[in-house]
Amino acid sequence: MSEIIFTDEYFMKEALKEAHKAFDAKEVPIGAVIVSNNKIIARGHNLTETLNDPTAHAEMQAFTAATEYLGAKYLNDCVLYVTLEPCTMCAGAAYWSQIGKIVFAATDEKRGYQKLKTNILHPKTEVVSGVLENECSILIKDFFKAKRM
Amino acid sequence: MSEIIFTDEYFMKEALKEAHKAFDAKEVPIGAVIVSNNKIIARGHNLTETLNDPTAHAEMQAFTAATEYLGAKYLNDCVLYVTLEPCTMCAGAAYWSQIGKIVFAATDEKRGYQKLKTNILHPKTEVVSGVLENECSILIKDFFKAKRM
Repeated sequence: MSEIIFTDEYFMKEALKEAHKAFDAKEVPIGAVIVSNNKIIARGHNLTETLNDPTAHAEMQAFTAATEYLGAKYLNDCVLYVTLEPCTMCAGAAYWSQIGKIVFAATDEKRGYQKLKTNILHPKTEVVSGVLENECSILIKDFFKAKRM
Repeated sequence: MSEIIFTDEYFMKEALKEAHKAFDAKEVPIGAVIVSNNKIIARGHNLTETLNDPTAHAEMQAFTAATEYLGAKYLNDCVLYVTLEPCTMCAGAAYWSQIGKIVFAATDEKRGYQKLKTNILHPKTEVVSGVLENECSILIKDFFKAKRM
């Protein structure tokens, strides 16, 4: 049995699995996982349509699940993997969680938090982008293409 | 019986009642209500400590409750009353909800969304501030004063 190598790609693939669940539920396909010591402690996918709740983004659900799992309000030693750059709301939530690192795949030119002139993340939060960018953005493009047909 | 006059002060007093609930639960005392056609359709108060959830702000809970009540993702015809200026996360959530109007009491010099150089609210969202500012900010100051003792 080959050993699992815990790379950013490995965990982003798990986030992408979550995005596929959203796709299957006719939701904008964005997925997230939160990892602590190489263990996935929370998963989430976009459920805004299913729940009729504009705040039900993948990341928001993952933050709530991760803090519930840890019984702690802060996620300093955790990494968020998400298939699209977080929006202002989710980046604001990341700030409050003090999450240690955010790895995202595709950039969101319209609603991504990086568009703001101020860094709204916690100053200690490390950011990596572009991991599995193609796979994650193709899924989103496919979703909107299918919607227009 | 005297008729109720539905003013911003009237509904802010209801938000302040929610803030008092937070205070009694040893939470930073911030409260919110969402109003549609002069009817309170959602209430929320800060529960970040109780739930161990940094996203459990008064406004976030009110948004989720209001959309659940209406069975709709958007709050265009609603007004959010909140005892403190929303943070970036809550303002980002307000954007997604497309809420018609936000009335807040006290300004949050540290974490308020107005500190950002970009307007992150929905362009159609109207904003009123300063309603019952003293009452709402005194409660928050009292909370932190008691904490330090």
